[in-house]
Amino acid sequence: MIQRLAIVGVGLLGGSVAKAVRSGELAREIVGVGRDEARLGAALGDGTLDRVTTDLNVGVKDADFVLLALPVLAIEALLPRVWRAAPDGATVTDVGSTKGAIARVADRLAAGRALAFVGSHPMAGSERSGYGVARADLFRAATVVVTPTDRTEPRAVKAVAGFWEALGARVSTLDPETHDQAVAAISHLPHLVAYALVDGATRVGPIALALAARGFKDTTRIAASDPDVWSEIFLANRAPLAASLDVFRRALGELEDAVVRGSAEELRGALARIKAAREALE
Amino acid sequence: MIQRLAIVGVGLLGGSVAKAVRSGELAREIVGVGRDEARLGAALGDGTLDRVTTDLNVGVKDADFVLLALPVLAIEALLPRVWRAAPDGATVTDVGSTKGAIARVADRLAAGRALAFVGSHPMAGSERSGYGVARADLFRAATVVVTPTDRTEPRAVKAVAGFWEALGARVSTLDPETHDQAVAAISHLPHLVAYALVDGATRVGPIALALAARGFKDTTRIAASDPDVWSEIFLANRAPLAASLDVFRRALGELEDAVVRGSAEELRGALARIKAAREALE
Repeated sequence: MIQRLAIVGVGLLGGSVAKAVRSGELAREIVGVGRDEARLGAALGDGTLDRVTTDLNVGVKDADFVLLALPVLAIEALLPRVWRAAPDGATVTDVGSTKGAIARVADRLAAGRALAFVGSHPMAGSERSGYGVARADLFRAATVVVTPTDRTEPRAVKAVAGFWEALGARVSTLDPETHDQAVAAISHLPHLVAYALVDGATRVGPIALALAARGFKDTTRIAASDPDVWSEIFLANRAPLAASLDVFRRALGELEDAVVRGSAEELRGALARIKAAREALE
Repeated sequence: MIQRLAIVGVGLLGGSVAKAVRSGELAREIVGVGRDEARLGAALGDGTLDRVTTDLNVGVKDADFVLLALPVLAIEALLPRVWRAAPDGATVTDVGSTKGAIARVADRLAAGRALAFVGSHPMAGSERSGYGVARADLFRAATVVVTPTDRTEPRAVKAVAGFWEALGARVSTLDPETHDQAVAAISHLPHLVAYALVDGATRVGPIALALAARGFKDTTRIAASDPDVWSEIFLANRAPLAASLDVFRRALGELEDAVVRGSAEELRGALARIKAAREALE
């Protein structure tokens, strides 16, 4: 059992971890760390957190498990401070959506001081954000990718994987670069495309938007995602995202070619093959 | 009340109309017309249809309301026969996803014989198809676009709009060309893009697909749509689809530019504007 869990950033993900840990009685004490005490108050008031602080050092210094549940760039920026403040023996992880840059910072810090850090990426979330939408079952049956490097201590992987599994998640292990390429294709690119679909439909005009049915709404639901979070993710993962965009453009171009040439047979064949791939995901 | 409703094509849409009409007691008799008597048997057996036939003339000749619930090209191909077989005074409509080509066929036929025809497009459906997934409430709160031309008889618009409203739908009226441009942007393009996203992710590899979370599944749900139906729709609406694709590529290119240039402020602004447009749809 965790003695003291410090959660830095109590939004959708941090708040959901706190609720899941509380309801599973997986930690003796949960400390919330944030910039705004008033916002932390909600999680304190409903009994999810035991204690809150706006001082990172205070929040982290006696914790045996530290979770950084912030946007990617904030994790990169705060990791050196957390690394210094965390006690020996503490396990540290984060929930950033891209892992390469964070892993490079951690590897550099690990050269100076051994600490049980490994990155995590819970493939769960919502187009909405903030503690108000946090829920204890967010990670149930979700995939969490844990991303060790050559420098990662094995005990960190074991502790962090065990933590997510206790929350009901399935854990996969990938190196940070493979992770970043994969999420570019199945998360970042679809978000960018959804934004572009809505933007395009807006340019076509209000009549088009007025006709939007369930298909369009499902396809573009993620275009209602948080602009701050997603601009940061796109920028943090720009090279893998650009590579995924190239692959997507080629695939789209091939379909368009078949449409323009009127090749019914070829188009039908391609759609049937893709439909089978899509159905295999369910 | 309709005396005899003939539904040509008893799949998802035709079957759902039949069930809705039956449960609302909106027609005295419902006749199903199809190519395969065995497949029609399901709708006869559960009491949704009163009579079935594989002979289009027999099905249509005494009907006062005829619904063509077939793929677009089949509607175009059969419309001349239906036009000849339908009795004077009958109202005829279809459920084709594109309306320009069907309207041109109808306008040509109307020059030879006056008949109360107007096209419809119910903006409801599913990535699944067939009578097995038909349901009486499919059109409840759905939008149905009715697409008159200069040649359309006003009584056709009145009867067809009233028919869909009786099934719980909201009816919009658009000329066929405006309809086709709008659905290219909010239905056909998103389908093509969803197919390309799945195809692209498949090319990136199995690790990427294995990580697909709810966001990817929602965005690409429609890539499991019927290849026959959708290859036909893409081909039938290719010019408006190509125009929508150009607008989409421009929108996507602008977002990509901001990512590549690392313009956080510009990117955030664009995403915030698009998020607001998306939220306005709900």
